Amino acid sequence: MGAVILPSNLFADLPKHLPEELVQTLINAGSVRIERIVSDGHASPDGFWYDQDQHEWLMLIKGGARLLFEGEEQPVRMSTGDWLNIPAHKKHRVEWTTPDEATIWLALHYDMPK
Amino acid sequence: MGAVILPSNLFADLPKHLPEELVQTLINAGSVRIERIVSDGHASPDGFWYDQDQHEWLMLIKGGARLLFEGEEQPVRMSTGDWLNIPAHKKHRVEWTTPDEATIWLALHYDMPK
Repeated sequence: MGAVILPSNLFADLPKHLPEELVQTLINAGSVRIERIVSDGHASPDGFWYDQDQHEWLMLIKGGARLLFEGEEQPVRMSTGDWLNIPAHKKHRVEWTTPDEATIWLALHYDMPK
Repeated sequence: MGAVILPSNLFADLPKHLPEELVQTLINAGSVRIERIVSDGHASPDGFWYDQDQHEWLMLIKGGARLLFEGEEQPVRMSTGDWLNIPAHKKHRVEWTTPDEATIWLALHYDMPK
């Protein structure tokens, strides 16, 4: 029969103090990984760009953020419920997250079949 | 450089009238599929059980629901932010979704490497 399946909550267990962005893996199934990311006013370090081997589906669950893609003048503003898909090796960085509250992201990293 | 990446919103474009549950595929990447599911008081038909070949990571984004797993006496109550992982072929059904507002789910269907 297996164990009883009980839900966890994405808003639960937010650390009171967050010196760095917090990345927690919820599911790791080989080529698919689901993460909860909690930012508290954090941004990517100056000059840093994410350059990932996998595609990333990213949703902003709570808070607010600005994401900059390489080659763009203006960052993309993200609010609660906003999602986008970042192709592998599409360089991007987090310019800003709201300092007023914790920003919670849901990130899904996945491979695309050739 | 590619097209500008702009977000979509998971709360947007909710139909005013929903005679049946609405399932929309957001990303289909071979072995990974992300869906938005909108329920408006819908439940699974009497005697119906989901029996899926893929694993499903399921999060309740908005609203409320009760999910029943085969062999369990009591359904699992799900509220905003709750998520759980349903192994492939773990039979389950939606017993209830709140009639007061639309219930929005995020569902990720994926394979687990052997």
